[in-house]
Amino acid sequence: MPVYADPVGGVTVRAPELYTWTAALVERLGTPADIAADVATILVSSDRRGIASHGTARLPRYAAQIERGKMDPSARPEQIRARPAMVLFDAHNGWGHHAGRVAVDATIAGARAAGSFTAVVRDSNHFGIAGWYALRIADAGLVGISLTNSSPLVAPTRGLDPMLGSNPIAVAAPAGQYDHFCLDMATSTIPRGRIEVAARRGEQLQPSWAIDRDGLPALTPQEAFEGALLPLGGCEESGGYKGYGLTLLVDILTGVLSGSTPGPLIAPLFSAEHGALDLGQTFMAIDPEALDEPGAFEKRMEHEIELLVGARTAPNAPGRVLIPGEPEAAAERRSDERGISLDQGHLESLAELAERYELPLPETTPL
Amino acid sequence: MPVYADPVGGVTVRAPELYTWTAALVERLGTPADIAADVATILVSSDRRGIASHGTARLPRYAAQIERGKMDPSARPEQIRARPAMVLFDAHNGWGHHAGRVAVDATIAGARAAGSFTAVVRDSNHFGIAGWYALRIADAGLVGISLTNSSPLVAPTRGLDPMLGSNPIAVAAPAGQYDHFCLDMATSTIPRGRIEVAARRGEQLQPSWAIDRDGLPALTPQEAFEGALLPLGGCEESGGYKGYGLTLLVDILTGVLSGSTPGPLIAPLFSAEHGALDLGQTFMAIDPEALDEPGAFEKRMEHEIELLVGARTAPNAPGRVLIPGEPEAAAERRSDERGISLDQGHLESLAELAERYELPLPETTPL
Repeated sequence: MPVYADPVGGVTVRAPELYTWTAALVERLGTPADIAADVATILVSSDRRGIASHGTARLPRYAAQIERGKMDPSARPEQIRARPAMVLFDAHNGWGHHAGRVAVDATIAGARAAGSFTAVVRDSNHFGIAGWYALRIADAGLVGISLTNSSPLVAPTRGLDPMLGSNPIAVAAPAGQYDHFCLDMATSTIPRGRIEVAARRGEQLQPSWAIDRDGLPALTPQEAFEGALLPLGGCEESGGYKGYGLTLLVDILTGVLSGSTPGPLIAPLFSAEHGALDLGQTFMAIDPEALDEPGAFEKRMEHEIELLVGARTAPNAPGRVLIPGEPEAAAERRSDERGISLDQGHLESLAELAERYELPLPETTPL
Repeated sequence: MPVYADPVGGVTVRAPELYTWTAALVERLGTPADIAADVATILVSSDRRGIASHGTARLPRYAAQIERGKMDPSARPEQIRARPAMVLFDAHNGWGHHAGRVAVDATIAGARAAGSFTAVVRDSNHFGIAGWYALRIADAGLVGISLTNSSPLVAPTRGLDPMLGSNPIAVAAPAGQYDHFCLDMATSTIPRGRIEVAARRGEQLQPSWAIDRDGLPALTPQEAFEGALLPLGGCEESGGYKGYGLTLLVDILTGVLSGSTPGPLIAPLFSAEHGALDLGQTFMAIDPEALDEPGAFEKRMEHEIELLVGARTAPNAPGRVLIPGEPEAAAERRSDERGISLDQGHLESLAELAERYELPLPETTPL
């Protein structure tokens, strides 16, 4: 996931205060306190990790969905099927964050017992950053995988219209003395959130990011919103069919496997006209201790990381080789030191909610 | 995987005859008959599917490895650890194809019992196309994942030297009346085999495929062989860090998880100077019937495929939207009808083996 640079004219807010405010707001939307705690934890974690697109910036849209009756803020996930290494939950159109947290905890417990485990969730909603769930598995000492489908935003290779979500793949693994390895990537070249941030900040787009409604490269956020994102790799000639394959793969492992709505028929993102999203989410965990002594996997991870960060770099490289998750972990430490940065558009959208729900925003400091 | 166009000046050979010859040759290299049958099946499957780089074209190199004592053609995989949803095999430096087939069959049986299952193999060798193993799982009605690490060929983003393999990800799923979904992709922009084929056919390279030894785009196969492949997405600016993340992810899930040699320290591909490869391979299976009625998943896959292949296409698209695995399945049907096509370099390398091992090649027909 892209870690966004500090916005011009932005502010900072302390993470614990933003968490408390977010949890209180989510409760006012009709959410039981324990569910609201999961939602706030995961949204603020995204902001702390510098992923401005997937955190509290989405609150106005979640609120609108609930206000329109598109999502049930009080629903609790129900276990439908259980096997020794697999479970299916029905989220009953509740918060995806809470269903995901519950499913991930089942995955961790199941993998400790069986060596590996898969949990599948149907009838869910957006769950924030996929990486949070994979990291929770890594925190427990296991290798974690987290997948979700989402509203159509990406054109399949050769296609003109958005048919599949930017369906992220997140994988995390504990790495001993180093930050967890955490690859958390949209299978589009960029996530839709990156275009939302560009729109808020008045930035142009790169030509491999999206096509306009005529299938030509989209250069402004507006053209991209009217067209479709491109899968990782861009067009067919530059390997975009692989990114399309990954996007479709995630839809198969989540929506098709869980029996949720197939990707091409999922309602548009935060649409007022359509019904519930009915997303699918899948979590997998592998316990390295099923194969080896405790700590042996982490030692090997440390060695792998040391080999890579010590690699010879290309003459024009801006720095040493990075490990996936390093920039986000550094952003998290910075956010915890000096506060989470919010751009003006983000701040104004939260202020609007604060006023409407009579819940004053925590104190902010100009950047 | 790229399906190669018919080579200029090539020949065709009947698949059953190439299979019989390959199995006999592999036996002459010191391989027991049942293991040789697995090797021949998987190599000829690659040729049938149009993936000229990963099939019998590799036989001269396998033979050289065995002749040099780098690989034990008679070794059998040994089960080291077993849990309800996980197993570890030691391949004891034997044929990767056989160890993979044994591990995949354990994965299928395990997933039918537990819902999902993971098999990990250590001390293995090249196993051919990753897709074969995923397809074997799909043939059994399950969703299959197949991963392997390999000799360093890919520079990490910002790096100059090959540090990781082109580590493929293959996923297959049964799709009812349609060909199995089968994504089988190197996590480099292209597999090394694509450059080998370009070298045999005297073709130039695309600039996003590889860098030369100074970190600049490699335009000839020779420059690429002296430099490194680029991860999917190319350079950092165009999203190559995601491809690097996927490449590293596969190494973690195979080499690091299994306790095999870490990717950056794996011996160069088919090197005469180095020891055994000690590769890691991981197979996962998910049984859709653990969650739903028999056939329900396949029905949903059919629906998903119909939605995508019927999608509106971009004005400049060369045809309708494809499903991953479709071109390979079409190539397989064509190979079974009119024979497998071999280019001249491929044919000559097999003829050399045929002469040395006194095993006449099957009849070929000019293309």
